[in-house]
Amino acid sequence: MINGDDIMIYSFANDYSEGAHPKVLETLVNLKEQNKGYGLDKHSKNVQTLIRKLTKNNRLHTHILPGGTIVNLTFIAAVLRPFEAVISPDTGHIAVHETGAIEATGHKIIACPSTNGKLDAETIEKVVLEHTDEHMVKPKMVFISSATEVGTIYYKDELIKIREICDKYQLLLYLDGARLANALVAEDNDLDLVTIAELCDAFYLGGTKNGLLFGEILVIINPKLNEDFRFMIKQRGGLSAKGFVAAVQFEAFLKDDLYLDLARNANEMAQKLQKGLLAKNLEMAYPSSTNQIFPILSDELIAKLQKKFLFNIQEKKPNNKHVVRFVCSWATKEKAVEALLKEIS
Amino acid sequence: MINGDDIMIYSFANDYSEGAHPKVLETLVNLKEQNKGYGLDKHSKNVQTLIRKLTKNNRLHTHILPGGTIVNLTFIAAVLRPFEAVISPDTGHIAVHETGAIEATGHKIIACPSTNGKLDAETIEKVVLEHTDEHMVKPKMVFISSATEVGTIYYKDELIKIREICDKYQLLLYLDGARLANALVAEDNDLDLVTIAELCDAFYLGGTKNGLLFGEILVIINPKLNEDFRFMIKQRGGLSAKGFVAAVQFEAFLKDDLYLDLARNANEMAQKLQKGLLAKNLEMAYPSSTNQIFPILSDELIAKLQKKFLFNIQEKKPNNKHVVRFVCSWATKEKAVEALLKEIS
Amino acid sequence: MINGDDIMIYSFANDYSEGAHPKVLETLVNLKEQNKGYGLDKHSKNVQTLIRKLTKNNRLHTHILPGGTIVNLTFIAAVLRPFEAVISPDTGHIAVHETGAIEATGHKIIACPSTNGKLDAETIEKVVLEHTDEHMVKPKMVFISSATEVGTIYYKDELIKIREICDKYQLLLYLDGARLANALVAEDNDLDLVTIAELCDAFYLGGTKNGLLFGEILVIINPKLNEDFRFMIKQRGGLSAKGFVAAVQFEAFLKDDLYLDLARNANEMAQKLQKGLLAKNLEMAYPSSTNQIFPILSDELIAKLQKKFLFNIQEKKPNNKHVVRFVCSWATKEKAVEALLKEIS
Amino acid sequence: MINGDDIMIYSFANDYSEGAHPKVLETLVNLKEQNKGYGLDKHSKNVQTLIRKLTKNNRLHTHILPGGTIVNLTFIAAVLRPFEAVISPDTGHIAVHETGAIEATGHKIIACPSTNGKLDAETIEKVVLEHTDEHMVKPKMVFISSATEVGTIYYKDELIKIREICDKYQLLLYLDGARLANALVAEDNDLDLVTIAELCDAFYLGGTKNGLLFGEILVIINPKLNEDFRFMIKQRGGLSAKGFVAAVQFEAFLKDDLYLDLARNANEMAQKLQKGLLAKNLEMAYPSSTNQIFPILSDELIAKLQKKFLFNIQEKKPNNKHVVRFVCSWATKEKAVEALLKEIS
Repeated sequence: MINGDDIMIYSFANDYSEGAHPKVLETLVNLKEQNKGYGLDKHSKNVQTLIRKLTKNNRLHTHILPGGTIVNLTFIAAVLRPFEAVISPDTGHIAVHETGAIEATGHKIIACPSTNGKLDAETIEKVVLEHTDEHMVKPKMVFISSATEVGTIYYKDELIKIREICDKYQLLLYLDGARLANALVAEDNDLDLVTIAELCDAFYLGGTKNGLLFGEILVIINPKLNEDFRFMIKQRGGLSAKGFVAAVQFEAFLKDDLYLDLARNANEMAQKLQKGLLAKNLEMAYPSSTNQIFPILSDELIAKLQKKFLFNIQEKKPNNKHVVRFVCSWATKEKAVEALLKEIS
Repeated sequence: MINGDDIMIYSFANDYSEGAHPKVLETLVNLKEQNKGYGLDKHSKNVQTLIRKLTKNNRLHTHILPGGTIVNLTFIAAVLRPFEAVISPDTGHIAVHETGAIEATGHKIIACPSTNGKLDAETIEKVVLEHTDEHMVKPKMVFISSATEVGTIYYKDELIKIREICDKYQLLLYLDGARLANALVAEDNDLDLVTIAELCDAFYLGGTKNGLLFGEILVIINPKLNEDFRFMIKQRGGLSAKGFVAAVQFEAFLKDDLYLDLARNANEMAQKLQKGLLAKNLEMAYPSSTNQIFPILSDELIAKLQKKFLFNIQEKKPNNKHVVRFVCSWATKEKAVEALLKEIS
Repeated sequence: MINGDDIMIYSFANDYSEGAHPKVLETLVNLKEQNKGYGLDKHSKNVQTLIRKLTKNNRLHTHILPGGTIVNLTFIAAVLRPFEAVISPDTGHIAVHETGAIEATGHKIIACPSTNGKLDAETIEKVVLEHTDEHMVKPKMVFISSATEVGTIYYKDELIKIREICDKYQLLLYLDGARLANALVAEDNDLDLVTIAELCDAFYLGGTKNGLLFGEILVIINPKLNEDFRFMIKQRGGLSAKGFVAAVQFEAFLKDDLYLDLARNANEMAQKLQKGLLAKNLEMAYPSSTNQIFPILSDELIAKLQKKFLFNIQEKKPNNKHVVRFVCSWATKEKAVEALLKEIS
Repeated sequence: MINGDDIMIYSFANDYSEGAHPKVLETLVNLKEQNKGYGLDKHSKNVQTLIRKLTKNNRLHTHILPGGTIVNLTFIAAVLRPFEAVISPDTGHIAVHETGAIEATGHKIIACPSTNGKLDAETIEKVVLEHTDEHMVKPKMVFISSATEVGTIYYKDELIKIREICDKYQLLLYLDGARLANALVAEDNDLDLVTIAELCDAFYLGGTKNGLLFGEILVIINPKLNEDFRFMIKQRGGLSAKGFVAAVQFEAFLKDDLYLDLARNANEMAQKLQKGLLAKNLEMAYPSSTNQIFPILSDELIAKLQKKFLFNIQEKKPNNKHVVRFVCSWATKEKAVEALLKEIS
């Protein structure tokens, strides 16, 4: 519940409006020892060990940074030469919602048509072939998110095809995993961390939107891309003096699959809400299987719901309708979902 | 105590090796409500109100960012045009220890000779006068830290003179306050937040090195410099989705002057250590009155101390000696100081 | 004629394959006196005076730079804050053919749908309204070219409407005039330099593609945008030590409307070619009225023409056809046009 | 002679106040054929062939750019990763007189103490050893100029020692040759282009200050550094559409050692002036053997000379004296030198 100026309203606006899960907080309360600074502590090393086990890859490197935008900009700026560009779906977070963070590091984003938030291999190849000489940027990286910004996920065959195109044209493949746990526990998911680590050059596993106070684990699989990477983290302001503060949270997060349990609650609540809305004959703008859903509502209904709930209006539709976004989190309770559904006759 | 590979050793290496003060952690454990994202929550607003009271300035703006480097680079990049440069003491954090973070935003740092980590007004004027035309960068900002990187602090008359030079040449004055609380409670201090807010265009008050999990409050006094500043924070990756997580920590920090109490412990422990070392006829490289001290020790003594303590070696001196740095924190216990002194015959 | 490896072929590939017009060269041969460096010479001042007369604006400033890309990147980087973006047609030179030069200065280009290479006011407004908060870049400049990259030109009513939208949303209007002289002498043109200077915040008048050895005159009308601009030119590498070398060329160029005469030849030759092709029932991809034309040719015909002529293939079309580009210049002779037409049965 | 507002005065202010040598201009007047754009023409290739012969290195690559600053910034930005820095003498052009051009590409310049404008191997090694970890930039390139900014030149043994240090620490060695021809014909010179190409990773040979209208040849010896370099030139605005205009000038420049003859005149005139001044018991601030000399003159004498001559005042000295700079060029006549000497009693 958000305590607004006058009234109490429940927020479906995002998955980062609550603090941290109790098991995560416990690690912070129990932090008594001194730890080395700047991510050189034993907890940060332990997180790397845990990720290596989950991906069955003993040579990858992990770095914990405070948020998704700084992970994206630091990694991309580290691995591209100045004239190299990133291919992204036009709905990609870096293309739309990071205030030009990637361009601010000097790199063009080539925003491409997407379907349900996803790029396909054909589109990537077309872009590469259109960039023919030194008067244009040189496409060098493919950026995708899973779950995507519209709640969908990449399937194994899609990711394999993208990897093949990347190999064909020497492109790097980078996956933004702000909501990767939500993708992994989606009903229609057929990917796991082992496969993702085999197919990508790097990805990140998000904590901020899945029950931590803050923090994302950047996983660099391609060892060449990890060379001197800590210089970049420091230069861009992402090297936390108390790196162990995020690391202990991630230890709890990865232990006993807590990260999957938290994502599962978020997905289940959102899917319950989606089913309820579909049962009321409301249409969805995108076929989400994760914790963000996108119903198309009449402006009248939107106005009614806004009295009791917080959520974002995304996009205008014909006939006085809008696409709205409802997001559930690790902390969303069933009764909140039920309360919302009850408002809709 | 740091748990090394084999043995337990106590760290005087920095003031960010412990977690957070219990009163700070309590706020996180008590976070039950939902909050708006990206620093638009009531706790973040409350921090601004608290800073306005402490500075007796109702028009300033505050922004909470995760760490000092990202505060520095975001603020400097926001307010300078591409050819404008920052005047800094050659010991300044931005000049030496931020991996070229400011240059990475496109701006030259003009590193100047300093005495005990401090710039003086004459040096600033000399630099301005040397920059005569468009073939050279245009000096536009003065960067200082208090406490400085060598534990000293600026006095009121020094800061007034620097402000006068800044006014004379239309320079902005920006103070890095990673250890500002330590300066405020130093025995020789004659400045307060009201005066600092009167003399500077902006400063930041550090939390990471003074008992929080993380976080710094950037205080922008000059309202023109605050225009569209949130775009910059987002672009550089410093806009935390869960901004309220740092904000609630700062509420506890500022309440009942906890921030001064924490800094006082750090200073007292370091000064006790300094007095003990002076009593053993050891020399100091800089006249620190805060929580970092810089004795000149023989290499033999250094080797002995390294068996039980962690600390940084700064600089070579003649006759097989080095300047070392001992740092105490809000959490340093008297017995640790005594144990170190005991090792020195 | 280009002297290829074996044979002599005539180039319609661009308008910069010849040296300079004899009247231009004469100024260089006659350069006997010493001149001040870095564009502070009397010839550079004279160019400013000439432009002020042509635009009836006595307060504007001119700067001569060596080429179009460096004009664009220097001006845009000088006037935008880091999070501010440029609205450009998707065919705009900065969006496609400058290797990410604008992004390399840190700024996003918002590439918009265009018709015949032109932006319209409605599109600009739509883009502005979609950019709602600090999670997205802030649109701040509109970039257009005239003549456009596809040979079309802006009309007075179009430019007035764009100016109105710019005023409504505090956007800067900047016109890339690499081929501005070609636009001014087009048959359908209804704009003059006076009106352009009234409606734009800045524009440049190109010399490289219109008979000079090199050089473009950037005209900054809005005096606020000229502040400290020479620092920017120097920083980006565009401040020629011998600035007078371009200035004397521009003196000849502007004298007795030589620049219009040169553009007129280019347009007339291209339009003659276009008419000839239309008479042979060939279709044009864009309705050009300037010196670049874009016929759609069969691949068979293209192969035949390539044996005797140099030109660029732009875009694939159905039924084994491609759009090609033929460009005429100040130096194109009628017999070259006739020779090409003769090849087409 | 510069034609000032009222009077005619002779300029010793620089070596770029005259146009181009007649043999250079002749190539432009004779340019009748069409040429390919963007430096892909036969003249540009021919320049590469000529440089390969002069250096006896058949694998190097050359690129012609319009001026020194854009050569420096384009090359440095192309070959360094974002956190890598350039070691430069504190008198280096990039460190002082390029308006932060290198920092604007994101890279720190580590300005080092120099003697007579020169860096030595010991200083470089000291800097490298001081940069110990990811909290500091990573030194990766050594920048030197010959002739230096104070008229001195590097000797073979000095350059060999610098190369050895570069090899020891994997540093790139880059030589700014704006006045390289002046160094090559200096009386005390013991280097040639063959040796320079053996010892450096890249250098440039300047034309602007030695009798061309404009232009510098960047010579990239290390082939790895040449990868995709044309993308960088285009992105930074240095890829001239009419690249052949500079290329034909350089063909004349390199033919029959014209470049050496032009530099020889500049050196001889400056050295004649220096000898004349020394004979009048005037002191020199630096031991120049090239075309820039730096006498220390009384303010009274300076005021007298300023009535008839243009020159720069560099630096204040005790006893009402200043260091001034007199520069001679390829076009300086003996009578100008004599006229100046005559003014000094």
